[in-house]
Amino acid sequence: MEGDAIPVLDKGFVRLVDVMGDDRAIVQAARVSYGEGTRTVREDAALIDYLMRHRHTSPFEMVEFKFHVKAPLFVVRQWFRHRTASVNEISGRYSVLKDEFYEPNAFRRQAKRNKQGSEGELADEEALALLREAEREAYRVYEKLLEKGVAREMARLVLPLNLYTEFYWKQDLHNLFHFLKLRLSPDAQWEIREYAKAIAEIVKAHVPLAWASFEEHVLHGATLSRTELKALEGLLTPELYEKALGALGLSGSRLKEALEKIFGPKA
Amino acid sequence: MEGDAIPVLDKGFVRLVDVMGDDRAIVQAARVSYGEGTRTVREDAALIDYLMRHRHTSPFEMVEFKFHVKAPLFVVRQWFRHRTASVNEISGRYSVLKDEFYEPNAFRRQAKRNKQGSEGELADEEALALLREAEREAYRVYEKLLEKGVAREMARLVLPLNLYTEFYWKQDLHNLFHFLKLRLSPDAQWEIREYAKAIAEIVKAHVPLAWASFEEHVLHGATLSRTELKALEGLLTPELYEKALGALGLSGSRLKEALEKIFGPKA
Amino acid sequence: MEGDAIPVLDKGFVRLVDVMGDDRAIVQAARVSYGEGTRTVREDAALIDYLMRHRHTSPFEMVEFKFHVKAPLFVVRQWFRHRTASVNEISGRYSVLKDEFYEPNAFRRQAKRNKQGSEGELADEEALALLREAEREAYRVYEKLLEKGVAREMARLVLPLNLYTEFYWKQDLHNLFHFLKLRLSPDAQWEIREYAKAIAEIVKAHVPLAWASFEEHVLHGATLSRTELKALEGLLTPELYEKALGALGLSGSRLKEALEKIFGPKA
Amino acid sequence: MEGDAIPVLDKGFVRLVDVMGDDRAIVQAARVSYGEGTRTVREDAALIDYLMRHRHTSPFEMVEFKFHVKAPLFVVRQWFRHRTASVNEISGRYSVLKDEFYEPNAFRRQAKRNKQGSEGELADEEALALLREAEREAYRVYEKLLEKGVAREMARLVLPLNLYTEFYWKQDLHNLFHFLKLRLSPDAQWEIREYAKAIAEIVKAHVPLAWASFEEHVLHGATLSRTELKALEGLLTPELYEKALGALGLSGSRLKEALEKIFGPKA
Repeated sequence: MEGDAIPVLDKGFVRLVDVMGDDRAIVQAARVSYGEGTRTVREDAALIDYLMRHRHTSPFEMVEFKFHVKAPLFVVRQWFRHRTASVNEISGRYSVLKDEFYEPNAFRRQAKRNKQGSEGELADEEALALLREAEREAYRVYEKLLEKGVAREMARLVLPLNLYTEFYWKQDLHNLFHFLKLRLSPDAQWEIREYAKAIAEIVKAHVPLAWASFEEHVLHGATLSRTELKALEGLLTPELYEKALGALGLSGSRLKEALEKIFGPKA
Repeated sequence: MEGDAIPVLDKGFVRLVDVMGDDRAIVQAARVSYGEGTRTVREDAALIDYLMRHRHTSPFEMVEFKFHVKAPLFVVRQWFRHRTASVNEISGRYSVLKDEFYEPNAFRRQAKRNKQGSEGELADEEALALLREAEREAYRVYEKLLEKGVAREMARLVLPLNLYTEFYWKQDLHNLFHFLKLRLSPDAQWEIREYAKAIAEIVKAHVPLAWASFEEHVLHGATLSRTELKALEGLLTPELYEKALGALGLSGSRLKEALEKIFGPKA
Repeated sequence: MEGDAIPVLDKGFVRLVDVMGDDRAIVQAARVSYGEGTRTVREDAALIDYLMRHRHTSPFEMVEFKFHVKAPLFVVRQWFRHRTASVNEISGRYSVLKDEFYEPNAFRRQAKRNKQGSEGELADEEALALLREAEREAYRVYEKLLEKGVAREMARLVLPLNLYTEFYWKQDLHNLFHFLKLRLSPDAQWEIREYAKAIAEIVKAHVPLAWASFEEHVLHGATLSRTELKALEGLLTPELYEKALGALGLSGSRLKEALEKIFGPKA
Repeated sequence: MEGDAIPVLDKGFVRLVDVMGDDRAIVQAARVSYGEGTRTVREDAALIDYLMRHRHTSPFEMVEFKFHVKAPLFVVRQWFRHRTASVNEISGRYSVLKDEFYEPNAFRRQAKRNKQGSEGELADEEALALLREAEREAYRVYEKLLEKGVAREMARLVLPLNLYTEFYWKQDLHNLFHFLKLRLSPDAQWEIREYAKAIAEIVKAHVPLAWASFEEHVLHGATLSRTELKALEGLLTPELYEKALGALGLSGSRLKEALEKIFGPKA
């Protein structure tokens, strides 16, 4: 089940170590809860889609992924804010850390309106050189401190946040989808989005039906507020909306549910 | 901080035991993450609303509620499926359980289309009498077994799912909102919805700003799929939608965000 | 990877559905954290034992088990108090529940000194007959209510706690060991201990090295208080204890650690 | 309820922001589970001690602490490996990070036998100067990059692991005890131990009874393996051990339990 490493950034990677279950495992678990079974792939797809859009999340927890990841510390700091996973990371107390640093091709500019974001490239070779020199100087000090006999756990204090580290990451599909929703978002920092994309590629290949429903209902969906729904209710008629939805392929309960989101349940 | 018990069903209740933090605690925690502070209630409300609609959930975890609840076993079985909480329940191994049973005023009919639901009342006094007789007979056997010296942990095997139990429930506001989203839904069984309503009443009184944003963006919001958004994009113009949203009071970044959900970010 | 069902109680079972990883996966994850690698089974066993006795728990989280279980409701109520797992259970809202009840061969007596426990058999055929009659009467009422058109979600109110249900249970090895520690304990109710034993059998077969360390250090170990350690310090000499430990096969760092628990680290 | 900041390291602190519940709240929750109540402080202490030594952990979850902490990044990286807590940290994407760095009074030497540890001081002013120069150079580059218009989220790549950050940390008492057990251990890095000590001071003041039991049974207790218990069984007689325990004040069920750990339950 082990996969090849997918390169990410200049020196990082994501590699699938192991996986438990697939689309069938989701269906199998749902069948325990909701009764007798589906047989065809088409029925499986419909059931998985139903589970996804009704946020019946527990069957998605029945699939588990384990990845081996190499990423810079500032990415890892964002990553580990997700608490619903198991992790083993290289310890800088046990081992001498390698001199591998993330060196971006270009810096991005501070965004003007989005306080947390960046926008556009900053063509400035000097800036990139400053980063490279600083990281090399930091590593030279790290090595000198080790030479002097300073404990590894203390010498590492000097190392910067673009240092690469490695870790194992094990997470169930439901929580992995949540991770991907947040980290594939345009609000996420570009670097962690690159990792999320690599993971998404692996997930998509292993659970194509669940992935399709995730894309449709979560990743490329949007939550509208009560006020927004009210505005739409005033602008549209059920007939008009139904026709447009039908033209895009919606029918049956999906069509009914879509109408109810804006016009409420029929009396 | 302890509150009066709010009666639920025929013999149950929800009572606030303790609470840590309020709307200010959410703002205070957000300020740590996102920088300097807001001062007025209006600014606090805007910040909380921003956190809620962007699913910045961690500041909501900084508020904690503790409830004392009395509810029937079949409700508790649904309740305890939520894992992100702390709980202490009466143990039927330590104590003799009291003869208190949930006796509905009326049964509901099996729903025709919704496999898991019910609809309409079933006026059938005989049916209610059957339940009452069965629960009393069960309790008589329970008492006889105890008299004979059967261990409490075994005698309870005979007791039915409408038996009342009591427990403490401690949960942070973020996870409590998730509980309420699911358990206030029309899909939830009517009985647990009654408990959710009592809890909602308490939460609303303690964190009115967070509650208002939860209602607007989560409870009465709806997640539209990619296909549904596409249908809307084809039916509306940004100008039309903007005007309708503006008439309902939306402006600034909320207006901009609402437009982007359907029409995407402006170039 | 699917296994045969191991029968438990009169009608229950535990069946392995899937497993991710084995002893090697524990070693593999630990190697990421703690550096370069072990090669032989003997070295693997030593590393796993080190992880277990130093409570380095994260590598054990890297192994995941999924079980299919059939058990009575009162057992399931204890089981689901463990929150660090994924679960899908039959829903009595979706499906008509089957008339399968746990009927013990004999009741146990209420323990005299242990408030929560039981002790000894109670030879009383009448008591067993009372339980059987009560469960059958309850099921008759359940069926009558369904016939009358009462919703499944309400008809089930009459069903007793010895009713069987089924569920999927997915949990990582670290948390499964915690479950087993608590549920194999003599303090646990006999019925859930029977399930724990079946699970233990499966776990032992799949991760024999981890199981051996779990037995040695956790399951058959005991935590002594500061006062108890002090009493031992006064009664023994390091030489005497070292000799006794050595005779039982302890040497090297394990011997050193054992001595330090009672006599403290050497100056 | 807010407390003064307790200084930790050269520029850090721990400050109690809020707390929910105290020793009485533990007793109150236990009483729900295990039946009728205790009245005196002495009885409360005995109940809490019983809960602690039998690892009845849920009542300890009913107390919640919230801290404001300022600590260097390398400490925070260890801290956040604990997943059972809520956290809000300063974001280096939103804010310019301040030039505050942890500067130890002295480095510690790499331990010879303990791969992950340190031992003894390394009197080397030059080493300390190297760290200080490196951190200042890193901050100069950080400022230059910001000046050039590099996004904050990228400029921070150059900052080292001894940079200070701040965060809110909210955790229940059970999980906080687990944190303290691990982070007060001599195996923990000295710097995080200093934070654990400050937290321990606060916890001790707020739940003195729970703290006393934690110290006795967990913090200064030790888990002995099956083999170690067997060695003790061969070296001691129950009478001898009972006398020694009695002399140290143990009696009743605590004495009985202590004996059973080594000699097993009496027939």
